[in-house]
Amino acid sequence: MQTIAVDAMGTDAAPTPEIDGAIQAAKARLARVLLVGPEDRLKLELAHRGAARQAIEIVHASEAVTMEDQGARAFRRKRDSSIRVAARLVNEGRAQGMISAGNTGAVMTTAKLMLGPLEGVDRPALAAVFPTAQGKAAVLVDVGANIDSKPLHLEQFAVMGEVYYRVIFGVERPRVGILSNGEEEHKGNELTRETFKRLKQLPLNFIGNVEGRDLYNGRVDVIVTDGFTGNVALKVSEGVVEAISGLLKQALSSTLPSKMGYVLSRKAFQNFKKRLDYSEYGGAPLLGVKGVCIICHGGSSAHAIKNAIRVAAEFSEGRVNEKIERELAGAVAGLSKL
Amino acid sequence: MQTIAVDAMGTDAAPTPEIDGAIQAAKARLARVLLVGPEDRLKLELAHRGAARQAIEIVHASEAVTMEDQGARAFRRKRDSSIRVAARLVNEGRAQGMISAGNTGAVMTTAKLMLGPLEGVDRPALAAVFPTAQGKAAVLVDVGANIDSKPLHLEQFAVMGEVYYRVIFGVERPRVGILSNGEEEHKGNELTRETFKRLKQLPLNFIGNVEGRDLYNGRVDVIVTDGFTGNVALKVSEGVVEAISGLLKQALSSTLPSKMGYVLSRKAFQNFKKRLDYSEYGGAPLLGVKGVCIICHGGSSAHAIKNAIRVAAEFSEGRVNEKIERELAGAVAGLSKL
Repeated sequence: MQTIAVDAMGTDAAPTPEIDGAIQAAKARLARVLLVGPEDRLKLELAHRGAARQAIEIVHASEAVTMEDQGARAFRRKRDSSIRVAARLVNEGRAQGMISAGNTGAVMTTAKLMLGPLEGVDRPALAAVFPTAQGKAAVLVDVGANIDSKPLHLEQFAVMGEVYYRVIFGVERPRVGILSNGEEEHKGNELTRETFKRLKQLPLNFIGNVEGRDLYNGRVDVIVTDGFTGNVALKVSEGVVEAISGLLKQALSSTLPSKMGYVLSRKAFQNFKKRLDYSEYGGAPLLGVKGVCIICHGGSSAHAIKNAIRVAAEFSEGRVNEKIERELAGAVAGLSKL
Repeated sequence: MQTIAVDAMGTDAAPTPEIDGAIQAAKARLARVLLVGPEDRLKLELAHRGAARQAIEIVHASEAVTMEDQGARAFRRKRDSSIRVAARLVNEGRAQGMISAGNTGAVMTTAKLMLGPLEGVDRPALAAVFPTAQGKAAVLVDVGANIDSKPLHLEQFAVMGEVYYRVIFGVERPRVGILSNGEEEHKGNELTRETFKRLKQLPLNFIGNVEGRDLYNGRVDVIVTDGFTGNVALKVSEGVVEAISGLLKQALSSTLPSKMGYVLSRKAFQNFKKRLDYSEYGGAPLLGVKGVCIICHGGSSAHAIKNAIRVAAEFSEGRVNEKIERELAGAVAGLSKL
C-alpha cells in the first residue's frame, strides 16, 4: 500500500475535511496516511472520532500557510509549514505522494523546489480534471503554473497529460487537442500554431485544435494550453456556474408553481451539482515533479480529500512519472530527427 | 431617423428572422431598414406579411456567403454578396450602419476592408456583450478579431470598449479591467502586464486586473483581452451553458417528483435562459471601423435582429466613433508625455 502525506491545514474548514477524508481513505484501505499539522490538535480530533487506531499517523508541523502568503515567501519563511513538511516526507521517501488544499501558489512553489523536476521536464504543470457531458473526465493542462509558456513547454504538457489520463482513467489512447480559437490547423496564435507542428510529430492520438466549448462536451480527453489561458478558461467556467446557480435560484423562487417545482426537483439539483463538482476527481495534479503532488480546492469536502488520496496512490502505483520520463525521452529522440 | 442595412441572408434560418426583425424594428420606429438580399424572394416574403409599406426598402444582392467560405476569399470572389452590398451601402453613406448574422470572419474582413479603420485605430476589435448576475451587461473586447495582439492594441480596445459602454448603456464611468490570471498588478503574462502600465496612464475608470469569474458577476463593465483569450473565454462560457442545460435536463427527468418539478418550473427555466441569451443585447459590435457594423449570432431570432438594429441606430446617434477618435487622440497625447 502507498503512503500519502496529507496537509491537514489547507481547506477553508481545516482540519475537519482533511481528518474525515483521511479516515475515509484509511477505512477503505486506499492508502496509509501521514496527517501533517499541529500534533496535539490533530491527536485530539482523531481521538474524538475514535479513529486513533486507523492507518493514520500524525506528523507534526508547527506553522500553516495562509491565503495571504505569497508562494515563494511562504516557502522561505515558514520552514515548518504543513505544506513544507508534507513535501519533505515525499522527498525523504517516507511518503510516495502529498496532497494539499492550501494556497495553490505556495503548494506549487514548495513542491517544485523540494521535489524537483522529472528528467526531461522543463516546467511542471498544473492539470485541472473536470467532468464532461458524457460523464467522463477531461484534463486541461496547464491551468496556472506557467503563465508565459513556449511551444516546447506545451509539448511536454501534452505528453504529461496524456500519460496521466491513460493511467488514472484507464483509457488506452486518450485524444489530445490544443485549445485554440478554431479547429482548422491555420487557426491559433503564434504559440499554438508552433505547438501544433510539434504535436503532429509525436506518437500521440493528436486530434488537432479544439475550441473552448469542447472542454465540456467529451470531444477531447487532454487539452493543452499555456497557464494563462488555462487559468482564464477554468475561472470563466466557475463564473458561469456561479451565475447560473444564482439566476436559477432567483427564477425558481419567482412564482408559486416555480417554487413548488424547486422543492420537488431539489434532489435532482443536488445530483447535478455533484456531477459538476470537479473535486470528485480528486483535485489537480502537479505534473512533472518527482513524487506525487495533488492540489485540492480550498472548499474541498472530506469526500474530495478522500478522492485526492486515492488518486495520489493510483498515480504512484501506476508509475505515472516513470512513464512520463520514458515518453519524453522518446519525444526528444523523435523530434531530433526533424 | 438612422438608416440601417440588414444582411437578410446571415442567420441559419435566413431570411425569416431578418425579415421579421426588420419589420419589428420598423414598426417600433427604431430605424429605417435597407434589407439586403435576393430582391424577388424578399419582395414576396414582405408582401406575404403585408409589410410592404413599412419603412423597409429592399436592396438586391445576388450572392450569399456560407459558413464554409473563408473570410478573405469570400470578400474577393463574392462581389455581390449580401454582406458586401450591405457594407457598400454604409461606405456610400446610404446607411449609417450594417448588421449581419452571417459568417463572422467574412463580415469582419468585409467591414474592415470596405469601411476602413477610424483615425487612430490600428486594429478594429470585436466586442461581445453579455449579461451579468446583476442584470447589467458586460463587454468583452476583443473576442476574435486580433489573435496575436500587442499592448498598444489592447489599449485601443479599452478606449473603444469604454466609449461603447458609456453610450449604449448610459453609464458615465464604466469600470475597465484587464482579463488576467489574478488580481494583483504583478499577475498576468507579458502582454497584460505591459497593458496594465498603459491603462494606468489613461483617464479611464481602470480597476486593474480581473479574473475569469468576474466576467459574469458584475464587478467590471469593460473587460480587455487579446482576441485569442477572448475567443476562448466566450466559447468556454457557451460550453458550460450547454453542458449544464444537458445535465439539468437529464437530472430533472430522472425521478417522478423531479419530472413534476421540471414541468412546474419550466416557465422559470425559460426566463432564465432568456437572461443568459446575449442576443438580447443585439450582437457584437465591430469597434474601430467607420460607420457601424454589428455582428449577430447565426442562431439569432427576429427579436435579436430587432435589437441589433436598435443598437446600430443608437451607436450612430450616440456618435460612438467620433468619441473614440477623440479619446484615442487624447490618449496618444497623454502617453507621449511618459
